[in-house]
Amino acid sequence: MKKALAFDIGGTKIYYTVINELGEVVSEIVKNSTPKTLEEIVRILRNGISEYSDVDAVAIATAGAVNNENTRVISSTGNLPEGYREIDFQNLTNKKVFVENDANAAAWAEFKIGSSKNCPNSIMLTLGTGVGGGIILNNKLFKGKSGAAGEMHFKMYPDKRRKCTCGSWDCFEAYASGTGLKITAEEISDNKQITTYDVIDGWKRGCPEMTKIFNTWQNHIIQGVIGLANIFDPDCFVLSGSMAEFVDVEKIQNDVNDEIVTTPTIVRKGSAGNYSGMIGAALLALESINK
Amino acid sequence: MKKALAFDIGGTKIYYTVINELGEVVSEIVKNSTPKTLEEIVRILRNGISEYSDVDAVAIATAGAVNNENTRVISSTGNLPEGYREIDFQNLTNKKVFVENDANAAAWAEFKIGSSKNCPNSIMLTLGTGVGGGIILNNKLFKGKSGAAGEMHFKMYPDKRRKCTCGSWDCFEAYASGTGLKITAEEISDNKQITTYDVIDGWKRGCPEMTKIFNTWQNHIIQGVIGLANIFDPDCFVLSGSMAEFVDVEKIQNDVNDEIVTTPTIVRKGSAGNYSGMIGAALLALESINK
Repeated sequence: MKKALAFDIGGTKIYYTVINELGEVVSEIVKNSTPKTLEEIVRILRNGISEYSDVDAVAIATAGAVNNENTRVISSTGNLPEGYREIDFQNLTNKKVFVENDANAAAWAEFKIGSSKNCPNSIMLTLGTGVGGGIILNNKLFKGKSGAAGEMHFKMYPDKRRKCTCGSWDCFEAYASGTGLKITAEEISDNKQITTYDVIDGWKRGCPEMTKIFNTWQNHIIQGVIGLANIFDPDCFVLSGSMAEFVDVEKIQNDVNDEIVTTPTIVRKGSAGNYSGMIGAALLALESINK
Repeated sequence: MKKALAFDIGGTKIYYTVINELGEVVSEIVKNSTPKTLEEIVRILRNGISEYSDVDAVAIATAGAVNNENTRVISSTGNLPEGYREIDFQNLTNKKVFVENDANAAAWAEFKIGSSKNCPNSIMLTLGTGVGGGIILNNKLFKGKSGAAGEMHFKMYPDKRRKCTCGSWDCFEAYASGTGLKITAEEISDNKQITTYDVIDGWKRGCPEMTKIFNTWQNHIIQGVIGLANIFDPDCFVLSGSMAEFVDVEKIQNDVNDEIVTTPTIVRKGSAGNYSGMIGAALLALESINK
């Protein structure tokens, strides 16, 4: 069975491991913090590549948008060193290198081995510090004209209330992310020191104020999913990422289906696990060499 | 050259004519007001079918969502008589009958002979009394799991301000439509009697208050397009419908491109004309019999 060396390159960590055609992790997961310089990032990549020389392809799940040819990063990636998108990953090895955006790769893993298996049309939302998105349409990853589709930066308000990390205002990410939950908590509690943990902890203990904050945050997710459901008429939504742990998918699904004009959809938590970015990138890479 | 008899069935009028494979209208346009009963609608359809018996297919652009097999209407259509979606159009003729949602059909006409020609990924927004949507992805009409994709009912606010015709709250349609402009005008001018015409007329004459109302309305369109551009990374947007006449597409395009995280997109007015629904449905019908 063919296998790929898969990297997950994010703003805080770089992981790598080997993954087979079934999406199974077949070696240890090597974990590094993301270094500050380009040279050190390249050194980690080279280390992995020389360590696992018996693979059939190299797969890279990365922060940032990736072009439709899956050869390079085309957007700026705030948390990675300047020049990151100038790296020509193919120069690092003679094996076929396949690059994909991390949220897109994770969506593909959910589609192949996880919660959106057998759903021709699905939307994955990664709820973490920010919000990532991956869109599968007609059983294919949808990338748009340049590879940047799936950015969950649609507006929750039209009138400039909350700045988003993207430079614009009031994007879904600015409300539905963990960071969004903290800002909503600051606004409702009038306490700048409040943390996401405080809200989750208080909500779990049944504190009315923290429950109100939590519900406001979850309602933002529901309102966003309603819009996406009407636009895409998808078979299902997959919610993954560290913040997805806390949401009530049954309530989200019911509330969404009560309001949409399209036929009912399904909302599930992700099940492809923490390494779904690497798994999805590896599966895409192995499919591309099998073509 | 093959040709199709095409109907456009809407809440206020039913048109029909004959259209050839080039998307050209090749007979007169027969115009009827939409009757109140199912029987009278069927009579108009039968009249057209017997009048033009030399066509190769019958194409129907209709209000309401249409299934992915293009055989029947699957959603309720508020402005058409009860039971409309029970009509089996194929029973009316021995020719192949092809049914498509009117906004989807119009989007296809723009893609084949109009403003989104040569754009593999485009989104058409029909700005009229309501807002219609049609989505072309990878050179194909995108319909979602059941045929209902492209409903432009995503939220402009998450907190229930303005009721939408769909039964939900604060959808793009409730702000970006002609009806939305009137409600925005009522709110800003505190005058329930104000009409869409008053706003357009005052804005054209440079009245500051009407210009403020107009700009608020156009800003809702811009905010919606920003979200769709980030989600889809499309080659272009096409704005059509009676209200599109008034918008400043250059300003919309510039404002959108200033804010999106994806690569720049194009915003154009539709150019396939008032009969784009019939043209698109006819082209789709003729393509389907040529397969």
